[in-house]
Amino acid sequence: MDTPLEKVTIAAKLDQIDEHWTPKIVGELNGQHVKLAKIEGSFDWHHHDDEDELFLVVRGAMRMELRDRSIDLSEGDFLVVPRGVEHRPVAEREACILLFEPSSTRNTGNLVNERTVSPERI
Amino acid sequence: MDTPLEKVTIAAKLDQIDEHWTPKIVGELNGQHVKLAKIEGSFDWHHHDDEDELFLVVRGAMRMELRDRSIDLSEGDFLVVPRGVEHRPVAEREACILLFEPSSTRNTGNLVNERTVSPERI
Repeated sequence: MDTPLEKVTIAAKLDQIDEHWTPKIVGELNGQHVKLAKIEGSFDWHHHDDEDELFLVVRGAMRMELRDRSIDLSEGDFLVVPRGVEHRPVAEREACILLFEPSSTRNTGNLVNERTVSPERI
Repeated sequence: MDTPLEKVTIAAKLDQIDEHWTPKIVGELNGQHVKLAKIEGSFDWHHHDDEDELFLVVRGAMRMELRDRSIDLSEGDFLVVPRGVEHRPVAEREACILLFEPSSTRNTGNLVNERTVSPERI
């Protein structure tokens, strides 16, 4: 599905997201998806075998836990988690994040569980 | 070159950019680059044969001129310009933008002129 040639207002798209940990597709280019998500609490430890994943904090703050350390991210910070690296996103309070990742990316990576979702486009 | 597993603070990277229209690489993933640029004035009309290009306004405002219309972008808006589509970014006042595009992307697309730059990593 091609991205229509019209602008996307991130704040307006975020208004359409009610749930946590359900990334929504808001753009597509070069086989990659741009997704938005609201997060709160701790996600599951996982990794992606074949996909590097970018997390950009749009509102609030989050922490990316890695097996050997944690990285705190504030609004306007981003982190690229390379393929194969186990990670666990955590947000003490609700945060809004933008993801860039290949369109093949499953949100729970190597896991398939009750948090696994097929991302909708909004 | 792999992106190191450390966070990138967009504001701090922008402080390192003095010139206009010289995108700097600040991240790399899945064969794509994340770039930051400061822009002011009008760029040249161009297109990219093989690359879709994402423009996200981080500070200020810009206008993307297309051959049949213009699209105004404010802070927090993004636009994907599909491959093959002629476009001209314009900013009346200095604006800061984030680009997401394949690492093969030349800033002036089909043109090679005095504005063509090989992006540095910062």
